[in-house]
Amino acid sequence: MRLYASVGGSVAGRREEQADIEMMNANSIRPFYALELMARGQALEAQGRSVCHLEIGEPGGKPADCVLDAVRGCLDRPMGYTAAKGMPALRERLSRYYAEQHGVDVSPERIVVTTGSSSGFILTFLAGFAPGQRIAVTRPGYPAYLNIIASLNLGSVEIPVSPANGWRLTAADIEAAYEKSPFEGLLVASPANPTGAVLERDELAAIIACCDRLGVRFISDEIYHGLNYVGGDASALEFSHDHVIVNSFSKYYCMTGWRIGWLVLPEDLIRRAEMMAQSLFISASSVSQCAALAAMEARSEYDARRDLYARNRLILSDGLKALGFGLAEPSDGAFYAYVDASSFTNDTMDFCLRMLDQAGVAATPGQDFDRTDGHKYVRFSYAGTQETIEMALERMRGFLQP
Amino acid sequence: MRLYASVGGSVAGRREEQADIEMMNANSIRPFYALELMARGQALEAQGRSVCHLEIGEPGGKPADCVLDAVRGCLDRPMGYTAAKGMPALRERLSRYYAEQHGVDVSPERIVVTTGSSSGFILTFLAGFAPGQRIAVTRPGYPAYLNIIASLNLGSVEIPVSPANGWRLTAADIEAAYEKSPFEGLLVASPANPTGAVLERDELAAIIACCDRLGVRFISDEIYHGLNYVGGDASALEFSHDHVIVNSFSKYYCMTGWRIGWLVLPEDLIRRAEMMAQSLFISASSVSQCAALAAMEARSEYDARRDLYARNRLILSDGLKALGFGLAEPSDGAFYAYVDASSFTNDTMDFCLRMLDQAGVAATPGQDFDRTDGHKYVRFSYAGTQETIEMALERMRGFLQP
Repeated sequence: MRLYASVGGSVAGRREEQADIEMMNANSIRPFYALELMARGQALEAQGRSVCHLEIGEPGGKPADCVLDAVRGCLDRPMGYTAAKGMPALRERLSRYYAEQHGVDVSPERIVVTTGSSSGFILTFLAGFAPGQRIAVTRPGYPAYLNIIASLNLGSVEIPVSPANGWRLTAADIEAAYEKSPFEGLLVASPANPTGAVLERDELAAIIACCDRLGVRFISDEIYHGLNYVGGDASALEFSHDHVIVNSFSKYYCMTGWRIGWLVLPEDLIRRAEMMAQSLFISASSVSQCAALAAMEARSEYDARRDLYARNRLILSDGLKALGFGLAEPSDGAFYAYVDASSFTNDTMDFCLRMLDQAGVAATPGQDFDRTDGHKYVRFSYAGTQETIEMALERMRGFLQP
Repeated sequence: MRLYASVGGSVAGRREEQADIEMMNANSIRPFYALELMARGQALEAQGRSVCHLEIGEPGGKPADCVLDAVRGCLDRPMGYTAAKGMPALRERLSRYYAEQHGVDVSPERIVVTTGSSSGFILTFLAGFAPGQRIAVTRPGYPAYLNIIASLNLGSVEIPVSPANGWRLTAADIEAAYEKSPFEGLLVASPANPTGAVLERDELAAIIACCDRLGVRFISDEIYHGLNYVGGDASALEFSHDHVIVNSFSKYYCMTGWRIGWLVLPEDLIRRAEMMAQSLFISASSVSQCAALAAMEARSEYDARRDLYARNRLILSDGLKALGFGLAEPSDGAFYAYVDASSFTNDTMDFCLRMLDQAGVAATPGQDFDRTDGHKYVRFSYAGTQETIEMALERMRGFLQP
């Protein structure tokens, strides 16, 4: 099967090839079901229904007060474009964060402020890979990975991870997958979405060493850093400066809707990524950059919020197990429970739609995260309030045992 | 020359092809010189130097007070993700704008709120075109067009426009270019960057009819709408609903750094663009969406600002002509003077760097907008204050006649 149109050849031939490509791309890009469930839930609420939102991976709280004060302050001046790589002060502060938090020296020159992690992925994929190159991701994993990869006409390889290993990827998994079908990039999140799995330091080091051995560019998605309930998070920067780090203010700093994040790039990608960012994005929101700079001074407040998620984590895990969902242990990080619903259904898409419509509980079907086995799984987010989680469990009890 | 790697074949063969591609892409993407000049100017200012900023296409003013009030109001609640296509209230308001301003009926379903026009272009190119398809643009034109097109592995065709025709594109130009090298898309801005050229209603209608005849998808960049000093702006929607409209709150509404804009899509692209937006961007900044909604109620205030640009336009045009720059007439729209500097230099990149370093006046070399003839031209923005423009002219007088 042809993946790319050749440039030579007749116009008619080209048009046929292009039709093939359009069909393929259209087929490989899927909706993000969590967002579709959210929209459906919001429509029910507009009709006066009450909905417990456990479908979207976003904290229910506002940013810290000092963040809002910083925003009020910046409204007094024009908020124009910043440098494409971001405000110098924010990039310097992020550099200091790596020194303080991870004990690593990262020059501000290597940091690019992005519009959430989203534009960070686009920039990484475009600057780091040629069309047709392949990026490996875990299955289950964040659905946007495969959709962005397909949208940008890159190829993908899925590496399955299993609950038997706590959903954690190993170097042996990577080698086995590469043997079957080689790839040029590997994108891994720890803590992971949807499973919450956290890689231990030595596991992360082994994965990076494996990538170096295979000549694979490693992309470390660290957007759930700070949301770890059993210890600290290791950054890939502690082991190598040759890879790409993607991070965001969305999760730990409660700033999803502000669309602000950052990349740390290896030397060979900096200039190319900067030139692409100038044209593709111009710069990230100036207001959000000011807000992000302030947020970094409020880590003790955000750590206290993590303690609330930690309580939610146990309430939700225990509650879901009591209802009959399969879950070995609550996962170590992020704010998700990814549970086996096969005692209730073999089609969690249908299950989630019914649970939303009948019980007013929104959760995300596993099909978002795993196109092969996801029909057996459901992801619940515990980033909301304890009251929401308790109400959702109560409603689900009625829904499952009517 | 091969543009795309085939998927079959040996790993070694693939790697060679990929090296070719990387080289090509790296060569075709250029820095955005206006941003580089801005950064250099800011560095001079950090050293205590005074710089007149006429290089960047952004208004110096803040958004209207009602916009800032709306932002203060939204800080009281969490700003989470919105639907991928944007807040319903903003899309409905934009729909009403088309009814009121252009007398056309545009369903909110066809509107996608974007992160400035930047993400609108990315979404349009990815949803509307297959890899290797070509998009035609004018030369001179907005430099990001060619860079985004190259970054996304699409092809481009440049259609030259000339000062003899007031830099305006004609249907005959399009047909002549298509004859030489066919293309699948045509992207045109009116008012245009860097020339400020405005298409008359019948000229725009003729261009759209020409695209329909050739089977070319038309993309109408309307981001300078509202900044027209001789009349009203015609929208492509007045003539057809089969094409793509790109717009933004950056220019007329003075919200560059807020990164907020919108698309109006034809029916065939809506669902595909929505799915891509879900994964590529999730949603535009919620704070900026609130700000944009408020901005639309302040058009009379923004019209008054246009009257200030109108005065600047004449001061700058007269001043530049008096200094010896070539400019037939001040252009009808946007806030740029694109002038012939060939009586001073044959390398405006060097000229602009010297003028910044020696005289503290930042302007953008034509090489940003025209890789062929741009070395003779300079773009000056008159979106700043009258004082800045007068000081810049004074400093240039000293620089040119030392």
